Amino acid sequence: MLVEVSRPSDRTAILGVARSVEVFSDEEVDTVDELFEGYVESPEKSGYNFLSCREGEALLGFACWGPTPLSKGAVDLYWIATAAEAQGKGVARALFDGVVEAARAAGRWLMVIWTSSRPEYQAARNFYQRMGCDLVVQLTDFYDRGEDLCVFTRRLEALTPQK
Amino acid sequence: MLVEVSRPSDRTAILGVARSVEVFSDEEVDTVDELFEGYVESPEKSGYNFLSCREGEALLGFACWGPTPLSKGAVDLYWIATAAEAQGKGVARALFDGVVEAARAAGRWLMVIWTSSRPEYQAARNFYQRMGCDLVVQLTDFYDRGEDLCVFTRRLEALTPQK
Repeated sequence: MLVEVSRPSDRTAILGVARSVEVFSDEEVDTVDELFEGYVESPEKSGYNFLSCREGEALLGFACWGPTPLSKGAVDLYWIATAAEAQGKGVARALFDGVVEAARAAGRWLMVIWTSSRPEYQAARNFYQRMGCDLVVQLTDFYDRGEDLCVFTRRLEALTPQK
Repeated sequence: MLVEVSRPSDRTAILGVARSVEVFSDEEVDTVDELFEGYVESPEKSGYNFLSCREGEALLGFACWGPTPLSKGAVDLYWIATAAEAQGKGVARALFDGVVEAARAAGRWLMVIWTSSRPEYQAARNFYQRMGCDLVVQLTDFYDRGEDLCVFTRRLEALTPQK
Protein backbone atom coordinates (compact mmCIF):
# COMPACT_ATOMS: atom_id res chain seq x y z
CA MET A 1 0.00 0.00 0.00
CA LEU A 2 1.51 3.26 -1.19
CA VAL A 3 0.52 6.93 -0.91
CA GLU A 4 1.82 9.24 -3.60
CA VAL A 5 0.78 12.32 -5.54
CA SER A 6 -2.07 11.45 -7.88
CA ARG A 7 -1.45 10.89 -11.59
CA PRO A 8 -3.70 12.50 -14.20
CA SER A 9 -4.71 8.98 -15.23
CA ASP A 10 -6.20 8.41 -11.74
CA ARG A 11 -9.16 10.66 -12.58
CA THR A 12 -11.66 7.92 -13.49
CA ALA A 13 -10.74 5.78 -10.48
CA ILE A 14 -10.90 8.79 -8.13
CA LEU A 15 -14.37 9.72 -9.36
CA GLY A 16 -15.36 6.07 -8.98
CA VAL A 17 -14.26 6.13 -5.35
CA ALA A 18 -16.03 9.47 -4.78
CA ARG A 19 -19.24 8.04 -6.25
CA SER A 20 -18.98 4.91 -4.11
CA VAL A 21 -18.94 7.02 -0.94
CA GLU A 22 -22.59 7.23 0.02
CA VAL A 23 -22.32 10.49 1.97
CA PHE A 24 -21.10 12.39 -1.11
CA SER A 25 -23.86 14.16 -3.02
CA ASP A 26 -23.76 14.44 -6.82
CA GLU A 27 -22.79 18.08 -6.34
CA GLU A 28 -19.82 17.02 -4.23
CA VAL A 29 -18.71 14.41 -6.77
CA ASP A 30 -18.84 17.11 -9.46
CA THR A 31 -16.75 19.34 -7.22
CA VAL A 32 -14.13 16.58 -6.83
CA ASP A 33 -13.97 16.38 -10.63
CA GLU A 34 -13.53 20.15 -11.01
CA LEU A 35 -10.83 20.28 -8.35
CA PHE A 36 -8.99 17.33 -9.92
CA GLU A 37 -9.06 19.12 -13.27
CA GLY A 38 -7.53 22.19 -11.59
CA TYR A 39 -4.92 19.98 -9.93
CA VAL A 40 -3.92 18.34 -13.22
CA GLU A 41 -3.53 21.75 -14.87
CA SER A 42 -1.49 23.16 -11.98
CA PRO A 43 -1.50 22.36 -8.26
CA GLU A 44 0.12 25.77 -7.60
CA LYS A 45 -2.39 27.80 -9.59
CA SER A 46 -5.48 25.86 -8.58
CA GLY A 47 -4.46 25.42 -4.94
CA TYR A 48 -5.59 21.79 -5.00
CA ASN A 49 -3.40 18.78 -4.37
CA PHE A 50 -4.42 15.14 -4.64
CA LEU A 51 -2.85 12.06 -3.10
CA SER A 52 -3.68 8.53 -4.21
CA CYS A 53 -3.40 5.42 -2.10
CA ARG A 54 -2.82 2.41 -4.30
CA GLU A 55 -1.93 -1.26 -4.14
CA GLY A 56 -0.56 -2.46 -7.45
CA GLU A 57 -2.83 -0.93 -10.05
CA ALA A 58 -5.84 -0.61 -7.73
CA LEU A 59 -6.75 2.82 -6.35
CA LEU A 60 -7.83 2.31 -2.74
CA GLY A 61 -8.58 5.91 -1.91
CA PHE A 62 -7.67 9.54 -2.38
CA ALA A 63 -7.18 12.75 -0.44
CA CYS A 64 -7.54 16.33 -1.58
CA TRP A 65 -5.91 19.21 0.26
CA GLY A 66 -4.49 22.64 -0.43
CA PRO A 67 -3.05 25.75 1.13
CA THR A 68 -5.79 27.83 2.74
CA PRO A 69 -6.34 31.03 0.75
CA LEU A 70 -4.82 34.13 2.39
CA SER A 71 -3.01 32.02 4.97
CA LYS A 72 0.74 31.47 5.25
CA GLY A 73 0.48 28.52 7.63
CA ALA A 74 -2.79 26.65 7.17
CA VAL A 75 -3.92 23.94 4.80
CA ASP A 76 -7.44 22.76 4.23
CA LEU A 77 -8.06 19.04 4.13
CA TYR A 78 -10.97 18.88 1.68
CA TRP A 79 -11.61 15.17 1.40
CA ILE A 80 -10.37 11.75 2.32
CA ALA A 81 -12.25 8.89 0.68
CA THR A 82 -11.69 5.15 0.74
CA ALA A 83 -13.08 2.71 -1.82
CA ALA A 84 -15.84 0.53 -0.37
CA GLU A 85 -13.83 -2.65 -0.99
CA ALA A 86 -10.76 -1.25 0.79
CA GLN A 87 -12.39 -0.30 4.11
CA GLY A 88 -10.63 -1.39 7.28
CA LYS A 89 -7.11 -1.54 5.85
CA GLY A 90 -5.92 1.80 7.21
CA VAL A 91 -6.23 3.60 3.87
CA ALA A 92 -7.67 6.79 5.39
CA ARG A 93 -4.96 6.89 8.05
CA ALA A 94 -2.24 6.42 5.41
CA LEU A 95 -3.75 9.25 3.34
CA PHE A 96 -4.09 11.49 6.41
CA ASP A 97 -0.43 10.91 7.28
CA GLY A 98 0.48 11.63 3.65
CA VAL A 99 -1.31 14.99 3.78
CA VAL A 100 0.38 15.88 7.08
CA GLU A 101 3.77 15.07 5.57
CA ALA A 102 3.12 16.99 2.34
CA ALA A 103 1.78 20.03 4.23
CA ARG A 104 4.80 20.06 6.55
CA ALA A 105 7.09 19.80 3.53
CA ALA A 106 5.33 22.87 2.15
CA GLY A 107 6.23 24.73 5.36
CA ARG A 108 2.70 24.70 6.76
CA TRP A 109 1.93 24.29 10.47
CA LEU A 110 -1.85 23.98 10.79
CA MET A 111 -4.42 21.67 9.21
CA VAL A 112 -8.06 22.79 9.13
CA ILE A 113 -11.00 20.51 8.32
CA TRP A 114 -14.50 21.81 7.62
CA THR A 115 -17.14 19.16 7.95
CA SER A 116 -20.81 18.66 8.64
CA SER A 117 -22.67 17.68 11.79
CA ARG A 118 -24.86 15.26 9.81
CA PRO A 119 -25.11 11.76 11.29
CA GLU A 120 -23.61 10.28 8.10
CA TYR A 121 -20.38 12.11 8.92
CA GLN A 122 -20.12 10.77 12.46
CA ALA A 123 -17.56 8.18 11.33
CA ALA A 124 -15.52 10.91 9.65
CA ARG A 125 -15.63 13.08 12.77
CA ASN A 126 -14.54 10.14 14.92
CA PHE A 127 -11.71 9.48 12.47
CA TYR A 128 -10.44 13.08 12.65
CA GLN A 129 -10.47 12.93 16.44
CA ARG A 130 -8.48 9.66 16.37
CA MET A 131 -5.97 11.44 14.12
CA GLY A 132 -5.40 14.02 16.85
CA CYS A 133 -7.67 16.76 15.51
CA ASP A 134 -9.62 19.02 17.87
CA LEU A 135 -13.17 20.22 17.25
CA VAL A 136 -12.63 23.97 17.70
CA VAL A 137 -16.08 25.23 16.76
CA GLN A 138 -19.52 23.98 15.78
CA LEU A 139 -21.58 26.60 13.91
CA THR A 140 -25.30 26.01 14.29
CA ASP A 141 -27.37 25.83 11.06
CA PHE A 142 -24.37 26.75 8.90
CA TYR A 143 -25.02 24.36 6.01
CA ASP A 144 -28.77 24.14 6.46
CA ARG A 145 -31.37 24.19 9.20
CA GLY A 146 -30.22 21.49 11.59
CA GLU A 147 -26.91 20.95 9.79
CA ASP A 148 -23.97 22.57 11.55
CA LEU A 149 -20.43 23.28 10.43
CA CYS A 150 -17.82 21.46 12.51
CA VAL A 151 -14.28 22.81 12.27
CA PHE A 152 -11.42 20.55 13.31
CA THR A 153 -7.79 21.64 13.49
CA ARG A 154 -4.52 19.85 13.95
CA ARG A 155 -1.12 21.40 14.59
CA LEU A 156 1.50 19.97 12.25
CA GLU A 157 4.63 20.74 14.24
CA ALA A 158 6.34 18.10 16.29
CA LEU A 159 5.12 18.68 19.80
CA THR A 160 7.64 20.43 22.03
CA PRO A 161 7.52 20.64 25.83
CA GLN A 162 5.75 23.70 27.22
CA LYS A 163 8.09 26.24 28.74
CA MET B 1 -26.71 58.92 2.32
CA LEU B 2 -27.93 55.91 0.38
CA VAL B 3 -26.96 52.22 0.23
CA GLU B 4 -27.68 50.42 -3.02
CA VAL B 5 -26.25 47.68 -5.21
CA SER B 6 -23.01 48.87 -6.77
CA ARG B 7 -22.91 50.05 -10.37
CA PRO B 8 -20.19 48.85 -12.74
CA SER B 9 -19.05 52.48 -12.96
CA ASP B 10 -18.26 52.43 -9.19
CA ARG B 11 -15.17 50.31 -9.82
CA THR B 12 -12.59 53.10 -9.77
CA ALA B 13 -14.08 54.73 -6.68
CA ILE B 14 -14.34 51.36 -4.88
CA LEU B 15 -10.68 50.59 -5.58
CA GLY B 16 -9.82 54.10 -4.39
CA VAL B 17 -11.60 53.46 -1.10
CA ALA B 18 -9.93 50.04 -0.77
CA ARG B 19 -6.51 51.64 -1.34
CA SER B 20 -7.23 54.39 1.20
CA VAL B 21 -7.85 51.78 3.92
CA GLU B 22 -4.43 51.35 5.50
CA VAL B 23 -5.03 47.84 6.79
CA PHE B 24 -5.62 46.48 3.26
CA SER B 25 -2.52 44.99 1.66
CA ASP B 26 -1.88 45.36 -2.09
CA GLU B 27 -2.88 41.70 -2.41
CA GLU B 28 -6.21 42.44 -0.76
CA VAL B 29 -6.84 45.46 -3.00
CA ASP B 30 -6.17 43.25 -6.02
CA THR B 31 -8.62 40.72 -4.63
CA VAL B 32 -11.30 43.41 -4.29
CA ASP B 33 -10.73 44.24 -7.96
CA GLU B 34 -11.04 40.59 -9.04
CA LEU B 35 -14.20 40.08 -7.03
CA PHE B 36 -15.74 43.27 -8.40
CA GLU B 37 -15.02 42.07 -11.93
CA GLY B 38 -16.80 38.79 -11.10
CA TYR B 39 -19.71 40.75 -9.62
CA VAL B 40 -20.08 42.93 -12.72
CA GLU B 41 -20.11 39.85 -14.96
CA SER B 42 -22.64 38.02 -12.81
CA PRO B 43 -23.35 38.18 -9.06
CA GLU B 44 -25.04 34.78 -9.29
CA LYS B 45 -22.18 33.02 -11.07
CA SER B 46 -19.36 34.72 -9.18
CA GLY B 47 -21.06 34.57 -5.79
CA TYR B 48 -19.97 38.14 -5.03
CA ASN B 49 -22.28 41.04 -4.34
CA PHE B 50 -21.28 44.66 -3.80
CA LEU B 51 -23.16 47.47 -2.11
CA SER B 52 -22.18 51.11 -2.43
CA CYS B 53 -22.89 53.84 0.07
CA ARG B 54 -23.10 57.18 -1.68
CA GLU B 55 -24.04 60.79 -1.09
CA GLY B 56 -24.75 62.57 -4.34
CA GLU B 57 -22.01 61.43 -6.68
CA ALA B 58 -19.49 60.68 -3.91
CA LEU B 59 -18.82 57.05 -2.96
CA LEU B 60 -18.47 56.93 0.82
CA GLY B 61 -17.85 53.21 1.17
CA PHE B 62 -18.61 49.75 -0.08
CA ALA B 63 -19.42 46.27 1.19
CA CYS B 64 -18.79 42.92 -0.44
CA TRP B 65 -20.70 39.80 0.55
CA GLY B 66 -21.93 36.55 -0.97
CA PRO B 67 -23.59 33.26 -0.25
CA THR B 68 -21.18 30.89 1.49
CA PRO B 69 -20.21 28.06 -0.86
CA LEU B 70 -21.97 24.74 -0.08
CA SER B 71 -24.27 26.43 2.43
CA LYS B 72 -28.02 26.99 2.08
CA GLY B 73 -28.25 29.51 4.91
CA ALA B 74 -24.99 31.37 5.40
CA VAL B 75 -23.46 34.42 3.77
CA ASP B 76 -19.90 35.61 4.08
CA LEU B 77 -19.32 39.30 4.73
CA TYR B 78 -16.00 39.80 2.95
CA TRP B 79 -15.38 43.50 3.43
CA ILE B 80 -16.84 46.74 4.64
CA ALA B 81 -14.71 49.79 3.88
CA THR B 82 -15.31 53.48 4.45
CA ALA B 83 -13.50 56.30 2.65
CA ALA B 84 -11.10 58.15 4.95
CA GLU B 85 -13.01 61.43 4.47
CA ALA B 86 -16.33 59.81 5.39
CA GLN B 87 -15.37 58.29 8.75
CA GLY B 88 -17.71 58.87 11.68
CA LYS B 89 -20.89 59.31 9.62
CA GLY B 90 -22.28 55.83 10.17
CA VAL B 91 -21.30 54.59 6.70
CA ALA B 92 -20.13 51.17 7.91
CA ARG B 93 -23.30 50.69 9.95
CA ALA B 94 -25.48 51.62 6.96
CA LEU B 95 -23.55 49.16 4.78
CA PHE B 96 -23.77 46.43 7.43
CA ASP B 97 -27.55 46.92 7.66
CA GLY B 98 -27.73 46.83 3.86
CA VAL B 99 -25.96 43.47 3.77
CA VAL B 100 -28.23 42.07 6.50
CA GLU B 101 -31.29 43.18 4.52
CA ALA B 102 -30.00 41.81 1.20
CA ALA B 103 -29.01 38.49 2.78
CA ARG B 104 -32.40 38.13 4.45
CA ALA B 105 -34.09 38.92 1.12
CA ALA B 106 -32.04 36.08 -0.38
CA GLY B 107 -33.52 33.73 2.24
CA ARG B 108 -30.32 33.47 4.29
CA TRP B 109 -30.26 33.24 8.10
CA LEU B 110 -26.64 33.43 9.17
CA MET B 111 -23.83 35.91 8.52
CA VAL B 112 -20.23 34.77 8.94
CA ILE B 113 -17.23 37.09 9.11
CA TRP B 114 -13.64 35.88 8.88
CA THR B 115 -11.16 38.39 10.16
CA SER B 116 -7.70 38.70 11.60
CA SER B 117 -6.50 39.13 15.17
CA ARG B 118 -3.99 41.80 14.07
CA PRO B 119 -4.09 44.99 16.15
CA GLU B 120 -4.97 47.02 13.01
CA TYR B 121 -8.27 45.11 12.90
CA GLN B 122 -9.23 45.86 16.50
CA ALA B 123 -11.58 48.65 15.34
CA ALA B 124 -13.21 46.26 12.86
CA ARG B 125 -13.66 43.60 15.55
CA ASN B 126 -15.19 46.18 17.90
CA PHE B 127 -17.52 47.27 15.10
CA TYR B 128 -18.74 43.72 14.43
CA GLN B 129 -19.45 43.24 18.11
CA ARG B 130 -21.43 46.52 18.22
CA MET B 131 -23.43 45.17 15.25
CA GLY B 132 -24.48 42.18 17.35
CA CYS B 133 -21.94 39.67 16.05
CA ASP B 134 -20.45 37.02 18.33
CA LEU B 135 -16.83 35.87 18.22
CA VAL B 136 -17.37 32.10 17.92
CA VAL B 137 -13.79 30.96 17.47
CA GLN B 138 -10.24 32.29 17.38
CA LEU B 139 -7.83 29.97 15.53
CA THR B 140 -4.26 30.46 16.71
CA ASP B 141 -1.61 31.14 14.02
CA PHE B 142 -4.12 30.62 11.19
CA TYR B 143 -2.99 33.46 8.91
CA ASP B 144 0.61 33.56 10.10
CA ARG B 145 2.64 33.01 13.25
CA GLY B 146 1.00 35.27 15.79
CA GLU B 147 -1.90 36.17 13.51
CA ASP B 148 -5.09 34.32 14.37
CA LEU B 149 -8.33 33.87 12.50
CA CYS B 150 -11.33 35.36 14.30
CA VAL B 151 -14.73 34.12 13.18
CA PHE B 152 -17.78 36.22 14.00
CA THR B 153 -21.35 35.18 13.30
CA ARG B 154 -24.67 36.93 13.43
CA ARG B 155 -28.11 35.37 13.13
CA LEU B 156 -30.25 37.20 10.59
CA GLU B 157 -33.70 36.19 11.79
CA ALA B 158 -35.80 38.56 13.80
CA LEU B 159 -35.34 37.48 17.40
CA THR B 160 -38.30 35.55 18.76
CA PRO B 161 -39.01 34.83 22.43
CA GLN B 162 -37.62 31.51 23.69
CA LYS B 163 -40.30 28.93 24.29
